[in-house]
Amino acid sequence: MLEKLNPDKHLDGKEYKESINELEVKLETLQQLILDLQIPVVIVLEGWGSSGKGTQIARIVHPLDPRHFNVYTMDKVNEDMAMRPFLWPFWTRMPARGRITVFDKSWHRIILADSREKWRVTHSKAAGFYQDVNAFEKQLTDDGVLILKFFLHIGKDEQRKRFKALEKNEDTTAWRVDAFDWEQNHNYEHHLKQYEKMLNMTDTDENPWHIIEANDRKFATVKIYKTIIERIEARADSLRSLANAGNGQDNPPPPYTGPRFLRHTTPDKPLTDDSYKKELEHYQHRLQTLGNRLYAKRRPVVILYEGWDAAGKGGNIKRLTEQLDPRCYEVVPIGAPTQDELARHYLWRFYNKLPKDGHFTIFDRTWYGRVLVERVERLTPEPVWRRAYREINEMETHLHNHGAVIFKFWLHIDQDEQLRRFEARQEIPLKQYKITDEDWRNREKWGQYEDAADEMIAETGTPHAPWTIIESNNKKYARLKVLRTITEKLAETLV
Amino acid sequence: MLEKLNPDKHLDGKEYKESINELEVKLETLQQLILDLQIPVVIVLEGWGSSGKGTQIARIVHPLDPRHFNVYTMDKVNEDMAMRPFLWPFWTRMPARGRITVFDKSWHRIILADSREKWRVTHSKAAGFYQDVNAFEKQLTDDGVLILKFFLHIGKDEQRKRFKALEKNEDTTAWRVDAFDWEQNHNYEHHLKQYEKMLNMTDTDENPWHIIEANDRKFATVKIYKTIIERIEARADSLRSLANAGNGQDNPPPPYTGPRFLRHTTPDKPLTDDSYKKELEHYQHRLQTLGNRLYAKRRPVVILYEGWDAAGKGGNIKRLTEQLDPRCYEVVPIGAPTQDELARHYLWRFYNKLPKDGHFTIFDRTWYGRVLVERVERLTPEPVWRRAYREINEMETHLHNHGAVIFKFWLHIDQDEQLRRFEARQEIPLKQYKITDEDWRNREKWGQYEDAADEMIAETGTPHAPWTIIESNNKKYARLKVLRTITEKLAETLV
Repeated sequence: MLEKLNPDKHLDGKEYKESINELEVKLETLQQLILDLQIPVVIVLEGWGSSGKGTQIARIVHPLDPRHFNVYTMDKVNEDMAMRPFLWPFWTRMPARGRITVFDKSWHRIILADSREKWRVTHSKAAGFYQDVNAFEKQLTDDGVLILKFFLHIGKDEQRKRFKALEKNEDTTAWRVDAFDWEQNHNYEHHLKQYEKMLNMTDTDENPWHIIEANDRKFATVKIYKTIIERIEARADSLRSLANAGNGQDNPPPPYTGPRFLRHTTPDKPLTDDSYKKELEHYQHRLQTLGNRLYAKRRPVVILYEGWDAAGKGGNIKRLTEQLDPRCYEVVPIGAPTQDELARHYLWRFYNKLPKDGHFTIFDRTWYGRVLVERVERLTPEPVWRRAYREINEMETHLHNHGAVIFKFWLHIDQDEQLRRFEARQEIPLKQYKITDEDWRNREKWGQYEDAADEMIAETGTPHAPWTIIESNNKKYARLKVLRTITEKLAETLV
Repeated sequence: MLEKLNPDKHLDGKEYKESINELEVKLETLQQLILDLQIPVVIVLEGWGSSGKGTQIARIVHPLDPRHFNVYTMDKVNEDMAMRPFLWPFWTRMPARGRITVFDKSWHRIILADSREKWRVTHSKAAGFYQDVNAFEKQLTDDGVLILKFFLHIGKDEQRKRFKALEKNEDTTAWRVDAFDWEQNHNYEHHLKQYEKMLNMTDTDENPWHIIEANDRKFATVKIYKTIIERIEARADSLRSLANAGNGQDNPPPPYTGPRFLRHTTPDKPLTDDSYKKELEHYQHRLQTLGNRLYAKRRPVVILYEGWDAAGKGGNIKRLTEQLDPRCYEVVPIGAPTQDELARHYLWRFYNKLPKDGHFTIFDRTWYGRVLVERVERLTPEPVWRRAYREINEMETHLHNHGAVIFKFWLHIDQDEQLRRFEARQEIPLKQYKITDEDWRNREKWGQYEDAADEMIAETGTPHAPWTIIESNNKKYARLKVLRTITEKLAETLV
């Protein structure tokens, strides 16, 4: 994409002035359109060292209302970032619908061989890099995010000229030229190949790279402006034609015909109280030791709890964490999404809660809500929740690529047991709050939830993030099985 | 508080077992009460090196449901923390109502001479430390937060014994004893005095320190448990008696008789278009230069915009930021609070948005909403918004102590000008969205808003955070005055 492109295109001052005023007015108007149509916009600036990213960002935001955009410089990895999957800092900075986020350098940077030491990742983390990046962009696009990726291209001579000028500049706040920069210039052809590869690997129909000839800043600005305007207008047009076409019929999903996991699992398991006490103590102690090892090895653990209402998630989680160092885990209960969460991709709230390396995060209800409650209660159209199978698998793969150990538990009880627990709760004043009309309504949809759970297990059970069905009629058995599953896998992983 | 206290108190195993089981059950029940009464709880553990803070935290959370608490270890200052006021990491970690946050080490630590280098603050930052801390705790308490401060006290010999034992421990994940620790033991008496001072300066009727004799861990645990239980029960009792007493009458505030700032400011100011262009360019360029200097000197700037509806805040902010490097500022529009924000102190959302050192944050509407819209619309009872004058002054003092430069602008227009603008907006399709029924209703309450604004200016205008009334009938004049005010003050400050 770069090799045959001449970065040396020019605009004279008069041409520039004429077009720029018009384009700025246009952009200002389009920002209002973005707000009206609630389009989230992500603009990414990549390019050669000293290709003018900062200048172009200042130009891009110039006509915009500063109350509705954010600019982030992503050239340093702080400790919080270093201890999480590489997409985490970008996920957590995603714009709400109607807002614009501009990234000065981006998630693509990580793979480039010319990155500074601070951005360099170990080989193991780079595994799956391109799949993770393309999946990330597709997930955002599917959710309605408009992504604009610009690469600023300058020639070898032009770069050298700029470095020299910078070295002469005495303004203390100016960008400093260092050895890394000169290395890039000296090995320009080598780096050209690196960029070329990165661009080719992440250039997709939906999210193409826009290469900007940037030897002349004025030419670059005009091309960037025109591209932004074109892309926003195209998006607005397609949204309008979608709106005219209507939403189509919201039919119930076809009957589920896939594998049946739940009804072939008998949730009743015997256990003597005596062996419970002993085993509980044994596994809790074991987990404590493994937790320390996890911390020393800086691996994160993500534990997901799903299951029938009243299946005993709370008590199960309590036994899991009871002997863990409370500074090393966090339990995240997931309720209905807040306004801020609804204004973004549904995975955003979960990315915000990912564990640091060496820590545990335990989700009480999870991102699987998308294909469980949102499916059954028709809160989300079928194509959208169906897409979530792929999105979730991609997210879990990204966590796995980063080194996370993932556990997914379905706490399984049968309908009779659930009824017994609902009735028992209604009799204990302290537990009455735990049972609501909604629980009774959910119970009436047992069959639909079973379909949803079975399909979810079939679609998202993967070798690196398998589902474990926990027979939970006997709560004590269930607690031991969770502890056993986790300790065995961790012992095996953390050798 | 420490000097005459013998940390050597013991419980034998039998006594311990008997009381501990009962206390754990009690605590478990009280957590439900906390949820029911929506009390936010903050528990702080401070104490000598190796006094057992980690162990006691594990004991405290042991009976609790892990879905409703968080534990934070505050012994490292990362870059994000170092670049903000010292209370920022604590503010941003505040529990929502009904939740419990446990801090392993706290905001008190910063002042102690035995703190590690990483916690040490410059002398200038320590100025006002005690006022800031006590104001912080009082603000939380007034908002209903229950704060429990524990100091674990051990003797010199006991500490030495523990350090020696730790040094022999081969567990690689165990806490390591370093030179700082041994220094503390060698100069135990000196550090005792330091602790003593810190405790005395921050021990208040509302938020007393609980000194825990901690030579014997079992004794310490039981005393901590009992204290927590007592304090929660006392809080619950007082909430119940408040509820029984009723809320009292919600009378309108007494007529305002203080100084009249607004009606003695004529919002009309002349300006020729010619001088506007020149001056705008001049001041924007000046601000750009000062922005670079600010960045180099690592000082943060906070700019607040309040004013009449349609006074031109948006356009004013736009001119202010237009030539600033977009990587150095953020504009934060403040709307109605979200659920997460309503579940915490009203200042919480603003602490979350404070600038990093070297950056600008511009608030479009601000924490002054408490004494403006919340007062006039009776969203908040009078004693509560009245309290906010003090709280806001304390917050701004805290920012000032940290080195922040603060600007507060009231954009002032008269009623006729507002009417003209409302009517003009209704005629321009692109701007119709800007004018709502609410704007017309607010307009009818002009007198009440004027009282509120005048009183606010009288109560919160301080030398380090003064109000500037911006005559805004002429928008261009208003923009220049804001720019002039900021550049003059910054030039003076950043010498």
